[in-house]
Amino acid sequence: MSKPQPARGMRDILPSEAAIRDWVQSKILATYRRFGYTRIETPALENIQLLTGDDGGENAKLVFKVMKRGETFTEAFAKDVKNENDLADLGLRFDLTVPLVRFFTSNRAQLPRVFKAIQIGPVWRAERPQKGRYRQFTQCDIDIIGLKEGLAEAELLVGSAEALLSIGFEGFTIRFNDRRILTAIANAAGVEPARHGSVFITLDKLDKIGVDGVQKDLVAQGFTETQIDKLSKMLEGVDGISVEDFATRLGNSLPGDVVKLARDVLDSVNADAGGRYMARFDPTLVRGMGYYTGPVFEIAQPGYDFSIAGGGRYDKMVGKLSGEEAPACGFSIGFERVVTILLDKKFVPPTEAKLTALLVPEGTPLGRALSASQALRQAGVAPSLFPLEKKLGRQLEGLQASGFTHYATLDGDGQPSIKEMKAPARP
Amino acid sequence: MSKPQPARGMRDILPSEAAIRDWVQSKILATYRRFGYTRIETPALENIQLLTGDDGGENAKLVFKVMKRGETFTEAFAKDVKNENDLADLGLRFDLTVPLVRFFTSNRAQLPRVFKAIQIGPVWRAERPQKGRYRQFTQCDIDIIGLKEGLAEAELLVGSAEALLSIGFEGFTIRFNDRRILTAIANAAGVEPARHGSVFITLDKLDKIGVDGVQKDLVAQGFTETQIDKLSKMLEGVDGISVEDFATRLGNSLPGDVVKLARDVLDSVNADAGGRYMARFDPTLVRGMGYYTGPVFEIAQPGYDFSIAGGGRYDKMVGKLSGEEAPACGFSIGFERVVTILLDKKFVPPTEAKLTALLVPEGTPLGRALSASQALRQAGVAPSLFPLEKKLGRQLEGLQASGFTHYATLDGDGQPSIKEMKAPARP
Repeated sequence: MSKPQPARGMRDILPSEAAIRDWVQSKILATYRRFGYTRIETPALENIQLLTGDDGGENAKLVFKVMKRGETFTEAFAKDVKNENDLADLGLRFDLTVPLVRFFTSNRAQLPRVFKAIQIGPVWRAERPQKGRYRQFTQCDIDIIGLKEGLAEAELLVGSAEALLSIGFEGFTIRFNDRRILTAIANAAGVEPARHGSVFITLDKLDKIGVDGVQKDLVAQGFTETQIDKLSKMLEGVDGISVEDFATRLGNSLPGDVVKLARDVLDSVNADAGGRYMARFDPTLVRGMGYYTGPVFEIAQPGYDFSIAGGGRYDKMVGKLSGEEAPACGFSIGFERVVTILLDKKFVPPTEAKLTALLVPEGTPLGRALSASQALRQAGVAPSLFPLEKKLGRQLEGLQASGFTHYATLDGDGQPSIKEMKAPARP
Repeated sequence: MSKPQPARGMRDILPSEAAIRDWVQSKILATYRRFGYTRIETPALENIQLLTGDDGGENAKLVFKVMKRGETFTEAFAKDVKNENDLADLGLRFDLTVPLVRFFTSNRAQLPRVFKAIQIGPVWRAERPQKGRYRQFTQCDIDIIGLKEGLAEAELLVGSAEALLSIGFEGFTIRFNDRRILTAIANAAGVEPARHGSVFITLDKLDKIGVDGVQKDLVAQGFTETQIDKLSKMLEGVDGISVEDFATRLGNSLPGDVVKLARDVLDSVNADAGGRYMARFDPTLVRGMGYYTGPVFEIAQPGYDFSIAGGGRYDKMVGKLSGEEAPACGFSIGFERVVTILLDKKFVPPTEAKLTALLVPEGTPLGRALSASQALRQAGVAPSLFPLEKKLGRQLEGLQASGFTHYATLDGDGQPSIKEMKAPARP
């Protein structure tokens, strides 16, 4: 009989990783609560129309679709089925932003005018499985709906930075840009508005494929030599450039409030950081999603070539879905990436109580075992009942391998006495 | 434009309920950790074959099925499609027990021989939506795989009772029975083994439809008058009966170890309870799932006509799935029911820090707002930034309605001063 495995691209989370995930989640949640955010939850399944709309971008193509059921399926099937969509009515969410906007429009009457939400939960994407990337993963977002630019960005950035500090990250860099600066870049290079998106998507790869790669990519897409030349010159040597200097480079075509916003957010966040992390302007930062309308930002951790958080302002999405506009801005911590880094560092989360195997000889009355267990819990220990095996050494080895640091035996009166496990013999 | 809503039978969880859910989850989790259980997670999606097998019982019919994708769909569709199953390859889990058994068999080499797991997570069932029942809901299970009957049952019962006590429940009753006692009842009534399942399913409704209802149901199913008469007599006046007296009533057809197990578990749990809750034998307790093989139990809370936890021993399930047997026993707290009771009681979870709206006048430098926020956090307050509105009274009303108990304003030097919100004027 072959052993059943998790479905393709899915995975099980074993106790040692689950303990890290719970710890990370509780620390992040506690930090965000200290910033006045409140948690909400949306269902994993949404109506398929919501998920396959424009705002999902590429992700909308990766939706796991749920089949209609019973008679509804039979009816749909009897008609002329053109593709999968005719047979599906629900889909698994591929991010937490589209559901949040749906949540906000569905529940607006019961929500404050300025709504600050935490969401932590799984999302699903039918991507080609590859090493380290799974088809179910956890996202961890904060969003502020109802505040125009300024306070919201500053609070999101500081809050997410504090959340990362609370789980032991430090020395990271917040990269900050604005979609309106990217638009000015594309305009200054003479790219027609309809093709701005293509330019941004290519620029987004700069980190990975370098200046040469970006140039080749733009050539392949049919941008003119002049356009590519202008883009290259504008983005040459921008490392560490100030937003004011970059505005000058753009021939002062940027609205003043865009420059001032970047300056204010960067300065205030850096003052708050007090050297524990830093924020800097980076005109090459794009962020993939098409729905961003203003500031975009991400956090990079030294030593890792992926960002550990990202977000931005999306002022049009609520209006598009509900007909009633509301400015919005969000920041998402890459929960899986953070966990990967902690696993990589062999991080072990602190535990409250000593995990203790309470070894019960055969024939011991159950009541005696339970009293000993209760006595240990009252002494601040975490006891777990096991029948005492004949080969104690072997039993202790097994228990130690599964995380027990202590064990307890019962004396003649049923009183437990605790012993520390010996350090395992290393080969 | 009509506002998009959650999918049919699904629901959003608003901040006040989310806070209760998080609190309940963290208390239960902490208690189970104190009993030495470790958390695991399985993916929401499993291969469809696993979910539509025998052990799912009625629930297997309620699986949300996920359509094959891309070419796999096209290929499947080109063949002779007989029903929905031909087009689906994945399904959403309908409980946490089937996935746990799959997890255990997939990861057995990396798990301790005696494995004690906590699982908390959503499950999905395509049931007809009705008041208070949703198609996605959270389950909260502990299971012990690898221990024969005795210690495992005692530890599961005491652990779950302590978890319920930790969230403020008390005075509840654990009902305890054993599938082998139910089998003896059916045998004593002369019911052939193949029809035991039908008798048990009917008996399970005793709470809801009473003795008359059960009798009518059995008549309708074609059981003989003699059989029904015997069953009725055996279960007449069993309220508070001891397991020994009931064994006598059954003509001592019960194996002695079944009686002794019930006695030992009940006595030891009651001793541990010390009057905070109680455990009692109840030969009418069935528990719906067909996979139970030994003890079954549930917890009833005075004043509510539904159980708030249920479980039992399922010694055959691991072997059936993997070919390698392992005894197993689990207990599931009805997370949604517990939350419903707390909502019903207008329970408000304790918060660590005062939720404080930090009101920032227009034109205040962002840095000043962030410093004030940091100062408040350092003083143990949870500040959230809002632009100060012109009509302060109206703004405070709104903030209070969304859970803020305090607000802060900035003095000329940017120092925040906190004020308590006035009690809202009640009409």
